[in-house]
Amino acid sequence: MILHIATFRWRDDVTEEDVAELTTLLRDMAAGIQELRSYECGESLRLRPGGADFGVAAIVDDEAGLSAYLDSEAHAAVYERLLGRMIAERAAAQLPVGPGAAL
Amino acid sequence: MILHIATFRWRDDVTEEDVAELTTLLRDMAAGIQELRSYECGESLRLRPGGADFGVAAIVDDEAGLSAYLDSEAHAAVYERLLGRMIAERAAAQLPVGPGAAL
Repeated sequence: MILHIATFRWRDDVTEEDVAELTTLLRDMAAGIQELRSYECGESLRLRPGGADFGVAAIVDDEAGLSAYLDSEAHAAVYERLLGRMIAERAAAQLPVGPGAAL
Repeated sequence: MILHIATFRWRDDVTEEDVAELTTLLRDMAAGIQELRSYECGESLRLRPGGADFGVAAIVDDEAGLSAYLDSEAHAAVYERLLGRMIAERAAAQLPVGPGAAL
């Protein structure tokens, strides 16, 4: 299985309402994408100094599953509606994880 | 439980040998930190364009567990020996995850 992780630092004009709406939109999106075995997103708990504002962690079976998620119309819709204009910086990586991985 | 995710983009002078050694050092470090319920690290699979070079995902019980990991002598030793000089950019976030979360 594959763990996809992404961190986001927001532009200065992003509001708490934007973040709350984005979190809801992403979770609703994830619920409709069957290739997503596990999915967590949300404002970072900010437990360490200098961290990002928001994080996403998604587990899929394979590269095809990752593409089905990230290239989906649902993901594009969230990006166009809100996420795209919020991003100042984004960083993402994918790691292999075990068959029992879950979030 | 808490999922800590971190992505790294390396400086231009970082070699494949550096990344291989770092991966071994981090995994050996993680094996000795009991607060780490799950830990994955490694070179990103780079399945998407423009991603980071390396990722870390760690699951701990709580904030105290996260501090025990990130403020440990073992973590500091890896940072001083190798990780510190490799980093061009680092981004990290923490997300709440379920009690059964595992990588």
